[in-house]
Amino acid sequence: MNSFGRIFRISIFGESHGECIGITIDGCPAGLLLTPEDLLPDLERRKGGKQKGTTPRQEEDLPIFKSGIFNGKTTGFPITILFENKNTRSEDYNKQRSIPRPGHADWVAHQKFGGNEDYRGGGHFSARLTTGIVAAGAIAKKLMSDLTIQAEVTEIAGEKDLEKGLQRAIDAKDSVGGIIECRVNGLPVGLGEPYFDSIESVLSHILFAIPAVKGVEFGAGFAASKMFGSEHNDAIENMEGKTRTNHAGGIVGGISNGNELIFRLAVKPTSSTPKEQNSLNWDTGNTEDFSIKGRHDLCVALRAPVIVEAVTALVLADFMLLEQKIKRIL
Amino acid sequence: MNSFGRIFRISIFGESHGECIGITIDGCPAGLLLTPEDLLPDLERRKGGKQKGTTPRQEEDLPIFKSGIFNGKTTGFPITILFENKNTRSEDYNKQRSIPRPGHADWVAHQKFGGNEDYRGGGHFSARLTTGIVAAGAIAKKLMSDLTIQAEVTEIAGEKDLEKGLQRAIDAKDSVGGIIECRVNGLPVGLGEPYFDSIESVLSHILFAIPAVKGVEFGAGFAASKMFGSEHNDAIENMEGKTRTNHAGGIVGGISNGNELIFRLAVKPTSSTPKEQNSLNWDTGNTEDFSIKGRHDLCVALRAPVIVEAVTALVLADFMLLEQKIKRIL
Amino acid sequence: MNSFGRIFRISIFGESHGECIGITIDGCPAGLLLTPEDLLPDLERRKGGKQKGTTPRQEEDLPIFKSGIFNGKTTGFPITILFENKNTRSEDYNKQRSIPRPGHADWVAHQKFGGNEDYRGGGHFSARLTTGIVAAGAIAKKLMSDLTIQAEVTEIAGEKDLEKGLQRAIDAKDSVGGIIECRVNGLPVGLGEPYFDSIESVLSHILFAIPAVKGVEFGAGFAASKMFGSEHNDAIENMEGKTRTNHAGGIVGGISNGNELIFRLAVKPTSSTPKEQNSLNWDTGNTEDFSIKGRHDLCVALRAPVIVEAVTALVLADFMLLEQKIKRIL
Amino acid sequence: MNSFGRIFRISIFGESHGECIGITIDGCPAGLLLTPEDLLPDLERRKGGKQKGTTPRQEEDLPIFKSGIFNGKTTGFPITILFENKNTRSEDYNKQRSIPRPGHADWVAHQKFGGNEDYRGGGHFSARLTTGIVAAGAIAKKLMSDLTIQAEVTEIAGEKDLEKGLQRAIDAKDSVGGIIECRVNGLPVGLGEPYFDSIESVLSHILFAIPAVKGVEFGAGFAASKMFGSEHNDAIENMEGKTRTNHAGGIVGGISNGNELIFRLAVKPTSSTPKEQNSLNWDTGNTEDFSIKGRHDLCVALRAPVIVEAVTALVLADFMLLEQKIKRIL
Repeated sequence: MNSFGRIFRISIFGESHGECIGITIDGCPAGLLLTPEDLLPDLERRKGGKQKGTTPRQEEDLPIFKSGIFNGKTTGFPITILFENKNTRSEDYNKQRSIPRPGHADWVAHQKFGGNEDYRGGGHFSARLTTGIVAAGAIAKKLMSDLTIQAEVTEIAGEKDLEKGLQRAIDAKDSVGGIIECRVNGLPVGLGEPYFDSIESVLSHILFAIPAVKGVEFGAGFAASKMFGSEHNDAIENMEGKTRTNHAGGIVGGISNGNELIFRLAVKPTSSTPKEQNSLNWDTGNTEDFSIKGRHDLCVALRAPVIVEAVTALVLADFMLLEQKIKRIL
Repeated sequence: MNSFGRIFRISIFGESHGECIGITIDGCPAGLLLTPEDLLPDLERRKGGKQKGTTPRQEEDLPIFKSGIFNGKTTGFPITILFENKNTRSEDYNKQRSIPRPGHADWVAHQKFGGNEDYRGGGHFSARLTTGIVAAGAIAKKLMSDLTIQAEVTEIAGEKDLEKGLQRAIDAKDSVGGIIECRVNGLPVGLGEPYFDSIESVLSHILFAIPAVKGVEFGAGFAASKMFGSEHNDAIENMEGKTRTNHAGGIVGGISNGNELIFRLAVKPTSSTPKEQNSLNWDTGNTEDFSIKGRHDLCVALRAPVIVEAVTALVLADFMLLEQKIKRIL
Repeated sequence: MNSFGRIFRISIFGESHGECIGITIDGCPAGLLLTPEDLLPDLERRKGGKQKGTTPRQEEDLPIFKSGIFNGKTTGFPITILFENKNTRSEDYNKQRSIPRPGHADWVAHQKFGGNEDYRGGGHFSARLTTGIVAAGAIAKKLMSDLTIQAEVTEIAGEKDLEKGLQRAIDAKDSVGGIIECRVNGLPVGLGEPYFDSIESVLSHILFAIPAVKGVEFGAGFAASKMFGSEHNDAIENMEGKTRTNHAGGIVGGISNGNELIFRLAVKPTSSTPKEQNSLNWDTGNTEDFSIKGRHDLCVALRAPVIVEAVTALVLADFMLLEQKIKRIL
Repeated sequence: MNSFGRIFRISIFGESHGECIGITIDGCPAGLLLTPEDLLPDLERRKGGKQKGTTPRQEEDLPIFKSGIFNGKTTGFPITILFENKNTRSEDYNKQRSIPRPGHADWVAHQKFGGNEDYRGGGHFSARLTTGIVAAGAIAKKLMSDLTIQAEVTEIAGEKDLEKGLQRAIDAKDSVGGIIECRVNGLPVGLGEPYFDSIESVLSHILFAIPAVKGVEFGAGFAASKMFGSEHNDAIENMEGKTRTNHAGGIVGGISNGNELIFRLAVKPTSSTPKEQNSLNWDTGNTEDFSIKGRHDLCVALRAPVIVEAVTALVLADFMLLEQKIKRIL
């Protein structure tokens, strides 16, 4: 349940305020040069505290390789990477325990796991788990150095001017959501299948695994629903399959067509808003006003692009291995 | 690759103009009363030719049970259902073979499968394959008679007045897209997991497997990206988890929270528009004007709601079995 | 549950006395020339009634391709093959219904499936289901024409002289078991993994899926337990990895070493012996004497070699695809 | 590839002389009381150095819980357990690098992974990886406290008197193999399926994942091949399904029948024999005499029973969850 992928496969574990979080990557080809330093740039991008609107919680996020690397190269066996949790302030969470935070998983986790869940900092639900995913994504990117995978925030709080959007949040003392767009260039033709293994299916699966994502669209996406067929269809221009327009976002019939892969995600506003809220108190059975403690992002979308790139790279590496576009030994 | 599900698992096969299409359902509990008639109402809804804007191709779509049923009940073993293809007019397609149809999989299929694909009527890519999925969905619905799963078209060609939207297509002699919304009531709390087995992940996976779907959003979806946290968060009102609003669409942390499950899909306009188009001719290497032959839907969204319900039921039945909310023997 | 394989994947369905049995093969590369005739030689070997000691039930076993073949070649999409059940005599089974047959699954099936199982002729438990597996195996063999996969009965009723062993059964008017040995030549080095994806693990998994198999051993197998290490170890003789002896049966550390792959299976005597037996009558709750009706093999091992070859071919094709030794498009 | 199980699922990682080895257990029900101490008795049984004939390499094998436990209970999320490698003497292995050890994976690993494998102490191939499996098995056992799962060595070097068998090895200054038998009591009726999910299939899969196992048989096993049907069939005696004999080993049609589950494994002699051997030297291309360095077991079968119990428990827990005999929350 906490694994994803078919040949290139990841498994995540850990809790926000436990000892560590981590990831195991199975099925990575042997012979890839890999050092912890290779992962740092993407890990750095994911970190909070570096830009306005992100959490002041600071973790070093140094990847600790536990297996699968020998003499500076991947061995072809599982790569396990740990990240220690050092900067935890669990006491913030204990105080709020009687009020399941709206927008958070507190209430459902309690019901589903019978009160056994580690609730501190969101436990296993925490976006801190994405640290491992970013590390795995950096490995997948390294496997596919011919591809460019670039995600960016294109809207905050409904504003395309990001500064402005963020200012709205700061002014309102409230959290906000955003839109992320990702583009991939250099993809070979022929990845994906019709139906259940369509690129859209597999990508959306893992994109919706990113906390706070509530919408995914490919190419023209929701706008396509308002278009005419003659307008939406991408005419093919040459024998390489280049299309005049790219409303399909590079995927037709579930399969990559060699044009730019484009998709967008809707990220909801951070559930932990600084605003006062009113919700159920478990102990009393009544609703009451309260404020969220802890250190949180005003806009989680800001830290998400590198996560989006990571999961995209993971999915593409898996398809590339299945289609024998990446060798098992490098 | 053509299978989906973990405990309640479907596998599809067949081609649009081959002898038949079909589906195998594995993992269905034993002891469910089941006759072909149980499947007819949903199959009827999926059929073309019954409403304005859908294809005149008429198939009887009578489900032929080949296995897994004994004495009118499911046995617990694989249920294979065939649907014969009778009303095929493959000659329509042979003529167009030199021009890969824009918006269709002709070009990518040819590249990916080396020219071995059955191109007639879209072959395995055809939405005709969804007939089996609708049949499987009807079985899943029967397993969960406490749930109501209802999908409907809420927009055609950007119009909420559906007649008006369809008229736009007819007037323009062009195909159009639409929006489908699905609501599920009666879900227990606790289906789904954080991360890769979130309800959003698994549902979107199979929703994007439906041909022509290019966007999926849950709850407030893309609109959430423009909201403040205090606005988006659904306050919990009582000990049963009922929320004041439902921007989350019934899913928090990937897990059902007992409120109505709501999601929407964007369906692109039918690729086979009646309009003249200009695209590559494989034989000449040049682009040229041409018109699509064959019998097609002006708006595929019109036939899609029952397919959306079907895949939703399949996913939920699987989660219910995993969570032991449905017994293995009824 | 009724599927097996990772890339080259089979799914079986059907019941002994239902309308048909069948198989779907997913993940077969596109472009393989394939006609029903290609499958006949192996299907013929599997058939009963051709040799002394096998069931007189005669089925034509003509494979009916339902999907995945176009213009005489595989398309890369699921291949579904049906075999009609024509020569059924279900009345034989109705009479025995009150006595669950010892050695058969009657009793456990009834408990597990709550009486919903199709009990006629063993239903889904019947070895008739192996017809589809043999067909799939013939396809896998055709994919790997460089390999020779040969299984044979090496012992019947404890006798290496097979005529003699069979005569023991005929004289005793009782069914008997046997040993099958399979040898594969031409395997590349490097298929398989240590631990869960060892060749032994994956092969034994599917070998034990063959009805009546109760033991599997590789290379020296059980005899290895009596050997000294210096005796059992296969010294490597040259840079190609050829070993002086082959006690490992061609697999070291779970991985093929380029030497002959050798393994053996123990097949129990046919449960449906002609001998009178004494066992529980469900209706009375008491044990009683009875005789098995129906048409059965005196020694099921006689028909099993081609099934053993088939499952071996399926496993090897899957490993070959994973290791990119077989292309996705031929 | 390094994972096993469907609902209760394990993933192993690590190398013999790397920093650690470990395991992740996903799908364990929430609410199980669990401390490191619960795992110690089984880990102790697996350790070398405690009995005659086992390796003097001593590791503390203290399980370090990294995730999935909170307030002394399982949370329902992945449990990752590490075991540090402290007592490594890798220099022993560097010296032998030019001679791939017969019976070991040195040669195949080198071919398969292109020289990138961690060869020290067998790397990922090492039986040290079974430490994690034993820990996971102890958790599975705790989930099923009603079952008794007991494995023992029944033969060493062909001798049922184990002291005598071991003395043969000591006298010959050679390693030896053995037979292990495992018995499970208390199993419910109805675990397993015909064909690919038969208990024999799934159990043998993981049993052959244990290093050095070369044969597996259930019930009468290979001896069944010499029996008459009337002799082998287990007559049913009462409505609970108790059988007069148990040649089937508690499994009929792939399904547990409520009688004792019995199976046996053949373990080959330790590949690292103290005897001088003659095999290929990679550097010279010629064969030569040499002796194995390092610390090794004379008979690996001696340490294997607890591993056999562990993998049996893992498989049974998975079947029990699938059949809803174990709840998701305790």
